[in-house]
Amino acid sequence: MNIDGLLSERANYMKASDIRELLKWVTADVISFGGGLPDLSQLPLGEYSDVAKYVISNYGLKALQYGKTEGVDELKDELVKFMSRYGIRADSTQILPTVGSQEAIELVARVFIDPGDVIITEKPTYLAALQAFRVYRARIIGVDMDNDGLMIDKLEDTVKRLKSEGARVKFLYTIPVCQNPTGITMSLDRRKALLELASRYDLMVIEDNPYSYFTFEPVDTTPLKALDREGRVVYMSTFSKIIAPGIRLGWVVADQEVVNWLAIAKQAIDLHTPTLSQYIAYELLRRGIVDKYISVIRETYKVKRDAMLDALSRYMPRGVSWTRPSGGMFIWVTVPSGIRTEDMLALAIRKYKVAYVPGKSFYPDEDVHNNMRLNFTYPTIDQIYDGVRRLANAISEYLNQ
Amino acid sequence: MNIDGLLSERANYMKASDIRELLKWVTADVISFGGGLPDLSQLPLGEYSDVAKYVISNYGLKALQYGKTEGVDELKDELVKFMSRYGIRADSTQILPTVGSQEAIELVARVFIDPGDVIITEKPTYLAALQAFRVYRARIIGVDMDNDGLMIDKLEDTVKRLKSEGARVKFLYTIPVCQNPTGITMSLDRRKALLELASRYDLMVIEDNPYSYFTFEPVDTTPLKALDREGRVVYMSTFSKIIAPGIRLGWVVADQEVVNWLAIAKQAIDLHTPTLSQYIAYELLRRGIVDKYISVIRETYKVKRDAMLDALSRYMPRGVSWTRPSGGMFIWVTVPSGIRTEDMLALAIRKYKVAYVPGKSFYPDEDVHNNMRLNFTYPTIDQIYDGVRRLANAISEYLNQ
Repeated sequence: MNIDGLLSERANYMKASDIRELLKWVTADVISFGGGLPDLSQLPLGEYSDVAKYVISNYGLKALQYGKTEGVDELKDELVKFMSRYGIRADSTQILPTVGSQEAIELVARVFIDPGDVIITEKPTYLAALQAFRVYRARIIGVDMDNDGLMIDKLEDTVKRLKSEGARVKFLYTIPVCQNPTGITMSLDRRKALLELASRYDLMVIEDNPYSYFTFEPVDTTPLKALDREGRVVYMSTFSKIIAPGIRLGWVVADQEVVNWLAIAKQAIDLHTPTLSQYIAYELLRRGIVDKYISVIRETYKVKRDAMLDALSRYMPRGVSWTRPSGGMFIWVTVPSGIRTEDMLALAIRKYKVAYVPGKSFYPDEDVHNNMRLNFTYPTIDQIYDGVRRLANAISEYLNQ
Repeated sequence: MNIDGLLSERANYMKASDIRELLKWVTADVISFGGGLPDLSQLPLGEYSDVAKYVISNYGLKALQYGKTEGVDELKDELVKFMSRYGIRADSTQILPTVGSQEAIELVARVFIDPGDVIITEKPTYLAALQAFRVYRARIIGVDMDNDGLMIDKLEDTVKRLKSEGARVKFLYTIPVCQNPTGITMSLDRRKALLELASRYDLMVIEDNPYSYFTFEPVDTTPLKALDREGRVVYMSTFSKIIAPGIRLGWVVADQEVVNWLAIAKQAIDLHTPTLSQYIAYELLRRGIVDKYISVIRETYKVKRDAMLDALSRYMPRGVSWTRPSGGMFIWVTVPSGIRTEDMLALAIRKYKVAYVPGKSFYPDEDVHNNMRLNFTYPTIDQIYDGVRRLANAISEYLNQ
């Protein structure tokens, strides 16, 4: 049967992620800086498997049964404690477990975005958030960043302009700490200024925070949500980096009214987040395994970041620059403006056996071609040095063409 | 901050499930026939916990890592074999694991429904499917059933009328075996006639099949998908009843083009189905634990169904009738037409301490008030007899008011 005539108009706005498509053609001999995969080699698999066994043996009739859309109470109580250690005060009615933080993004889009509504983001920003917002046909406006993060004066200009045009600005989506893709952390002053501006213009703020738990050096990572006195910040985070991605578990912290709406939206999507994943996360938190693992990856990832920074300064040709992230998983590389990194990728993968994500995918509303995102958490130290050298050679060849 | 002005128009079409809301007010002294919960008391928790431990110890670096949106290959290969035993021939590119079959319904709605498009369903039908379709603002048209399931002549009249009106009919959604909420199984002749009609009118058919694996007596349960020669059936099923709901794992079998679209849609929602759940299901299938458990619940649920049928004939007052399901989890009760079961529910819960789901919630496009859905899988045998007696008393009091 031919389904062409049956597809929704929405289907035109769905697009497979460039990164995930790219990962498909990476063969075993290619060093990939493309994905955003955590390094699981230090995972305490023994403890994890004991916890999984314990959870099923001891809470099996709950952990394997249907649960409330609102989430497992035991997990939410642990999250209340976990969040409070990062300065966020919330009770368990303000927390919603989700299928990764991707689902949190989806839910926010679903509850708030009508076609043509404006969403403001950093420029560049997380591409899977762009993907989710685009399905709902948001008009996405990017605002520039510098080394201190989102530029608040530019943000204000943008908001003023949009309001004067009569645009319906639904929210600002931001990743303040170790941003994806740039690795940049917004300064504390900027964070305060952002909230002050949000209050002045009555903006809702979506704070996506996967990385602040494991920064590599002393840097202020106070969440916007911890500074939020007006309930305008919707905080979302994930266990993908601090436990493991395979349980697909994220969570939202927001005012109860927002949480209620997100839960209603979630019900029609998947009834609830896997109870098994929720009980496993609960038990890992309760036993302190998460905290211990956070210190392990902080050390591991710092060494890898340092290796990649070192390799970049050793091998990269003149005219190439990069960010120096305090944490997270990515370094953002800028190459001479003649290079279109999306075009160079075939050469990089096929001849030099190295992969990255072209920067273009991260831009909400303009075409910028001379960036790439490099992941430093998944490859080994040897692969980092070898891969950066290969990438430098690819850039040199491409420049000299 | 006040979010009222920020909600999407879509939010008006989101509604918390009546069942899930109802479950919230059921206290410990209430016997609930309301939910659709499986009985987990026979679950081989020891084997399940061993499998979970084994999966993490042996496949941990895959089972806890990010995976492809398309799903875990090992699970899909097992599903190919599992499906073939039910007459469905598919290769693994035609299979997509989802977060419960609820997500499969969501994906189909997302990919195919524009506002105003027509969806045809049985009348009554699964309420969470109605919920999902309504978010996408489908116009849902119900077609009558009798004891042999969907009435194909009425379906043809409906399709003809809709086509002559120029309606965009996107698909027929059906639960052919042990339908939710009625428990009715479509006869094999009807199933063949349905496919013949679908071919003639070029209709896509969504076949939702959670229950056929554990029918209680010899009844033909050949899936539409097994009879489908034109790729017009999108089959969806779930492990919620045959493994456990807490891993939230369902799957779709459809033509590759449909699977591709559903996967693209899924990516923006949650990236992928939990890899841990997928590996656990894979291992449970591979070890034959699922098949063994299916025979266990077949026996357990048969005894419970028989108990409920017996209790109904013992206690129900004259004028009350009910279906006699060959499997599944539900009996559909019809009370005298003067009774509005949604109004009687308060009396039933508060005074008689028994809960059910009012039939009204299952009707797509008309108001029918004198039905209720009773679940027989979750309560114990004692609760079934006691609860049906209480319910009969509630009905008698309500009739005599």
